[in-house]
Amino acid sequence: MHPLITLTTDFGIGGPFVGVMKGVILSLAPSARLVDITHQIEPQNIAQAAWVVEAAYPWFPEKTVHLVVVDPGVGSQRRAIAVKNGTHTFVAPDNGVLTPVLQPGARVYELNRKKYFRDPLSATFHGRDLFAPAAAWLARGTPPSRMGPKITAAVTLKMPQPRLNRGTLTGEVIYIDRFGNLITNISSGLLESAFPTGAGWKIKIAAKPVRQWVSHYSQCRPGDIGCVLNSWDKLEVFCREGNAAQKLKCRVGSPVKITPTRSAA
Amino acid sequence: MHPLITLTTDFGIGGPFVGVMKGVILSLAPSARLVDITHQIEPQNIAQAAWVVEAAYPWFPEKTVHLVVVDPGVGSQRRAIAVKNGTHTFVAPDNGVLTPVLQPGARVYELNRKKYFRDPLSATFHGRDLFAPAAAWLARGTPPSRMGPKITAAVTLKMPQPRLNRGTLTGEVIYIDRFGNLITNISSGLLESAFPTGAGWKIKIAAKPVRQWVSHYSQCRPGDIGCVLNSWDKLEVFCREGNAAQKLKCRVGSPVKITPTRSAA
Amino acid sequence: MHPLITLTTDFGIGGPFVGVMKGVILSLAPSARLVDITHQIEPQNIAQAAWVVEAAYPWFPEKTVHLVVVDPGVGSQRRAIAVKNGTHTFVAPDNGVLTPVLQPGARVYELNRKKYFRDPLSATFHGRDLFAPAAAWLARGTPPSRMGPKITAAVTLKMPQPRLNRGTLTGEVIYIDRFGNLITNISSGLLESAFPTGAGWKIKIAAKPVRQWVSHYSQCRPGDIGCVLNSWDKLEVFCREGNAAQKLKCRVGSPVKITPTRSAA
Repeated sequence: MHPLITLTTDFGIGGPFVGVMKGVILSLAPSARLVDITHQIEPQNIAQAAWVVEAAYPWFPEKTVHLVVVDPGVGSQRRAIAVKNGTHTFVAPDNGVLTPVLQPGARVYELNRKKYFRDPLSATFHGRDLFAPAAAWLARGTPPSRMGPKITAAVTLKMPQPRLNRGTLTGEVIYIDRFGNLITNISSGLLESAFPTGAGWKIKIAAKPVRQWVSHYSQCRPGDIGCVLNSWDKLEVFCREGNAAQKLKCRVGSPVKITPTRSAA
Repeated sequence: MHPLITLTTDFGIGGPFVGVMKGVILSLAPSARLVDITHQIEPQNIAQAAWVVEAAYPWFPEKTVHLVVVDPGVGSQRRAIAVKNGTHTFVAPDNGVLTPVLQPGARVYELNRKKYFRDPLSATFHGRDLFAPAAAWLARGTPPSRMGPKITAAVTLKMPQPRLNRGTLTGEVIYIDRFGNLITNISSGLLESAFPTGAGWKIKIAAKPVRQWVSHYSQCRPGDIGCVLNSWDKLEVFCREGNAAQKLKCRVGSPVKITPTRSAA
Repeated sequence: MHPLITLTTDFGIGGPFVGVMKGVILSLAPSARLVDITHQIEPQNIAQAAWVVEAAYPWFPEKTVHLVVVDPGVGSQRRAIAVKNGTHTFVAPDNGVLTPVLQPGARVYELNRKKYFRDPLSATFHGRDLFAPAAAWLARGTPPSRMGPKITAAVTLKMPQPRLNRGTLTGEVIYIDRFGNLITNISSGLLESAFPTGAGWKIKIAAKPVRQWVSHYSQCRPGDIGCVLNSWDKLEVFCREGNAAQKLKCRVGSPVKITPTRSAA
């Protein structure tokens, strides 16, 4: 048995902090295998971490434990939670960072039994003192119910939802990758239901038109802006061999508007 | 058996992308051990990735699988390949990124048997859908011949080669490390054959003279520019306790010229 | 047996260098498990690496081998050493980077038996040729005494120590984390002995007053500067939801002065 634990934090990779968490985990769960998702979440950007966790976790094997520490409220009364969602388990501060996995049916536990954590907790590093030990115990098979009571109301973020109004579908950029590709929250299913077969539409992002709808990046010429359905089945705006975010001056939250050009047949 | 897989990409370390590939690999090959070479290849810089792979792979144990995803043509008709080169195996898009390992005797297979990959493939993330599964199957011992036909002509890059012309040896900078050291493509063997024992020579890099030839960095004074034969047995220009690339305004591709100063004895 | 090896270097994560060291280790010690502390030590900043190692190592299990390569003197006559400090083992150049673990009782060995290392050593990459092999042999259980003679005088850095002068306690910033938090070398124990119960004091950092002393970050309002006892039990100055280093124009070495405001009762 070599349980898997993933790590997602905003600690960066320049200091001892991530290493310390790994040392704590491996002291408690020597056979655990650790996979970094990222430690480059923007400082205290809970929504970004929520998106990254949502995008990454389903690709891991069942029983993986996902440790998520983006924790501006460290040391305050904010709770620490474990969430069981189908066959995955998550450990994080109760600040909304687990919103995408708090679907109906998910079980939520408050982590408050001191015997499983460092006691007393420090004021500034619950990643080391609470979340890493919790992940280690979970990876060893300790049920979360032993670490604290089941609770019903976890904190959730308002995740931006696309909306359809008078025929116009409005979404937004939810992530910008290293290439400057603009990943939106508009899925192919939503497009299909908003614009039935045969209907035409046009796309604007941050008020700039996107004229090329292609099936893969290489169909545009170098330097051209296009859009594509990406590997998460979401509308993505890109610049072939360039950086769309820079070229279009977009950021996370920039609006994407899709309007009909003619009626469906 | 804990097979090793290395990863080299241009995905960066800020998003879910590398983690997703690792989740896919560990779902198919739970005992695989993963080692990151780098995910900081400049976006779509195939030549840089080729150099990094060439520099790193020989230091890994036999049977290591090397996964390389720098893939500007993702979604197009470019092929995916596996290469067996002696006892190492490589998986990558067929775009030249494996040029350094395509020596005579290397066997190349097109990866096209759908049962080994995600089907259908997404338009934008074959790292997840094709290359990670291929690496996992190879690490499990599946022969590449089962994943597709042997092919003869893989795409190759023109790697920059030093040339000797009228006694002048001309090479170029092929990599700049984090310290600003300028690694060239001129090897000690080439120097010896171009300038027999007893011959003198002088070195210019980006048209600036390098006056100190030393056997290790500390022989120069702080701030001085020198050159040394480095750990890959290549000529390297450095600034002691400084950054040669900045000081000499050099970049990858900057020329290095070595000219004789007197005849051999 | 899956021995643990941690890695701390200034190699960065953009090239083949860290991967090469891992390949060398796994070739010699196939069952070793590797944990990166960081590879982002500022180029050749021995003092920073010393602090990171000191902060990280105690959280790892007994028998962990810690590989530390920040090595401006590579290729010169500087020695390579292994240090046994209680139940942890360290491998590094003898340049002071292991100062924090050279407590009384630590045993130091010079690594000079060629059969354990690459021979000849390259001029520029002893991480690959000497330190990685040494870490692998140590992880396999080879006693350091077999790799070279015990020595008595290892190089040490002068680590900045707080001082108390006429009632004023003066320390300095020793690390700045990714959030811009300013970690000082003033511990709670030192504060207690310098300012007995009931005494008041005031704090200045880089000559600017810090008016809020709180027990956790969230007690300050967003944008406010405060100080806290952090998870290493050290005084830390922070800006809630901001970057104290930028706001206060502080750097490593900036002075922290604590002066009494009234006598103890």
